[in-house]
Amino acid sequence: MTNSTPTHSLPTGFRAAGHACGIKADPTTLDMALFVSDVPCVAAGVFTQNRVVGAPVQVSRERVPSGSVRGVIINSGNANACTGERGLDDARWMTAEVAKGIGCDETDMLVCSTGIIGHFLPREKLATGFGPVVEKLGDSPDSLVSAARGMMTTDTVHKLANRTIEIDGQTVTVTGAAKGAAMIAPNMATMLAVVMTDAALSTEQATSILREAVNSSFNCISVDGHTSTSDTVLLLANGQASGGRQSPDGSNPPETLITAITEVCADLAQQIIRDAEGAEHFVTLDVCGCASREEAAIIAKTVANSALVKTAITGNDPNWGRIVSAAGYAGIDFAEQECSLMVNGTSLYESGTLVDYDAAAVSAAMATGEVHLELTFTRGDSSVRFWTTDFSTEYVRLNSEYTT
Amino acid sequence: MTNSTPTHSLPTGFRAAGHACGIKADPTTLDMALFVSDVPCVAAGVFTQNRVVGAPVQVSRERVPSGSVRGVIINSGNANACTGERGLDDARWMTAEVAKGIGCDETDMLVCSTGIIGHFLPREKLATGFGPVVEKLGDSPDSLVSAARGMMTTDTVHKLANRTIEIDGQTVTVTGAAKGAAMIAPNMATMLAVVMTDAALSTEQATSILREAVNSSFNCISVDGHTSTSDTVLLLANGQASGGRQSPDGSNPPETLITAITEVCADLAQQIIRDAEGAEHFVTLDVCGCASREEAAIIAKTVANSALVKTAITGNDPNWGRIVSAAGYAGIDFAEQECSLMVNGTSLYESGTLVDYDAAAVSAAMATGEVHLELTFTRGDSSVRFWTTDFSTEYVRLNSEYTT
Repeated sequence: MTNSTPTHSLPTGFRAAGHACGIKADPTTLDMALFVSDVPCVAAGVFTQNRVVGAPVQVSRERVPSGSVRGVIINSGNANACTGERGLDDARWMTAEVAKGIGCDETDMLVCSTGIIGHFLPREKLATGFGPVVEKLGDSPDSLVSAARGMMTTDTVHKLANRTIEIDGQTVTVTGAAKGAAMIAPNMATMLAVVMTDAALSTEQATSILREAVNSSFNCISVDGHTSTSDTVLLLANGQASGGRQSPDGSNPPETLITAITEVCADLAQQIIRDAEGAEHFVTLDVCGCASREEAAIIAKTVANSALVKTAITGNDPNWGRIVSAAGYAGIDFAEQECSLMVNGTSLYESGTLVDYDAAAVSAAMATGEVHLELTFTRGDSSVRFWTTDFSTEYVRLNSEYTT
Repeated sequence: MTNSTPTHSLPTGFRAAGHACGIKADPTTLDMALFVSDVPCVAAGVFTQNRVVGAPVQVSRERVPSGSVRGVIINSGNANACTGERGLDDARWMTAEVAKGIGCDETDMLVCSTGIIGHFLPREKLATGFGPVVEKLGDSPDSLVSAARGMMTTDTVHKLANRTIEIDGQTVTVTGAAKGAAMIAPNMATMLAVVMTDAALSTEQATSILREAVNSSFNCISVDGHTSTSDTVLLLANGQASGGRQSPDGSNPPETLITAITEVCADLAQQIIRDAEGAEHFVTLDVCGCASREEAAIIAKTVANSALVKTAITGNDPNWGRIVSAAGYAGIDFAEQECSLMVNGTSLYESGTLVDYDAAAVSAAMATGEVHLELTFTRGDSSVRFWTTDFSTEYVRLNSEYTT
């Protein structure tokens, strides 16, 4: 909540709040967040693909898409995952308690939890928080920051993004809050994001736009390749931009709105990578010239998750061999001659052959902490952009020494 | 070549040698290995699945399976990978030069190279080695050790294994030499193995036995998930156990022989893991009760490659959440209730629910450096055993700081 961070506004008709109910070791640290729409809104969700999922994922997944959602209650410090039937009861209980304060049906509240897994929620602590968090709901930037901080686990900074656009003479706002950071056990680095807009969307439109936006943002980041049990991205659209709820007329939503939602998701995704535990380099990876976007994404994911690529980047080494050979085992049936590689704008490998380059200059460019890898194939016109981190001794230290 | 290592004998009719021809920085370090059968032998090979492959892989792959192979020439210090047409010429030239000394056709010599990639072979140095390495060929255990050391790159110990069995009253020997160690750039941690036997096999039998043996040995190890451009496993069978070459009569090879070859491969594979760079724990991972062996292997590979599982093991933490959730994102459609986990003999997670256990005792067992993970499903009767390592700060240091 420093003054140097930009100010982000909530879309019209949304309120937010953060609260400390004592789940975390320090009882003054915010551990509860609430996002509420003043009117029933359209909601869509994208959830973890892991087969082992937290109770809140199961509950929220059942409730979207929906045309009558009122809000999202989130706690940090305990993921309520691997907790069986009792966990499901606890997640539903959270939504019921908040719904009482809001004055809505419990099934119109969504729920997320992030933190330690395998432990039951401390109901008595949470119970003290529902009243105050509803009381604190506000539409100011400070309320939004407080909610964003209530979602944090090992994040060192809160993560907010927003865009405003004009649609038919009305100002429309898209605002998102997220938490990420890599895993530090026994936390599972859940990635949570709540994206709100005062645009009017149908449930079908919201579902489709969110799926596409996630596909080119949160699905394009990788810290260590581990999929959490609780990853959740929610989109809430309340249609309040024009002063009253607009029913979408069935026409396609404007491209500017789709772009704004996608940009908010991409902005949040990049903030998550920049705040990844132990990361010393921010890596943008473009895989271009592929036969399909899926093919490009498979190659990008394999390169982004390669421990040898990541450790080479930690050492500021333009190690083309590791990068090209990681692409080589991605399972895509390409020929070496179809592949070229640039690192921070310098060509290292062209059409399957190493080229002369100034290794010291490339290494110096990498040492700035911003690394750009461009893998270009001659297989088609599809491309993908990924964001990832390096793999430092600090990452290993954080992820192996947390018990001591 | 210490006295404390066991003595391994070559099968009848095989000779081996190691030599230093000056490829490596220290010109006295062995960098050439030669394995020869006195008579033409049956040869089968299994090669890297990477799309980017070294020139020697391309040349050897063309020459097996074969019924007339005489040997394998190997150099370390330069992988002759990503070297285009000239690399292919160089690989063929190596076999032609050695074939002259042996007195055979060049196409009956196989070739492997391991070391730095993207550099042309130093022909002038290699040329000085072919005469001496043929001269040094011997059938003593010392000759075998010398050849095994000539294959080494970042390996700290040479790797040999053998088994003797009785078939129809004849003693049959299976002996293998391998090199591994994880990658340390710009080397690509090639895994090479040459397995020799004086049993008689047809090319079809050799191909089939080797594929199965590799599937439950070298394909079940993982240091960092990176597939090298040069991985090669060769099986040579010369039929000399009974004093003269036996033509296989078409009957199935005895189970004892298949077992011996598989055990030699598994022994070598485990030696590679025990010598992995920066490894502090040796991990045996059993995935049981799956619907198919393939399903078990997919889960095992995903768990074995998880950076979060590996760093937890570094910290002696029985972090069931990381292990179970890694299985959860393997892409196998199981239900949580089908999954149980034991660590070093203690049950942590049963049928989808955490159980009470003595975390300190399990951690102490892990601190011995020998870790046994057992993931058991209730989906079928198929299982797989994998071997892997942890992920230490030393691994990152070795793989990121090699340039400084």
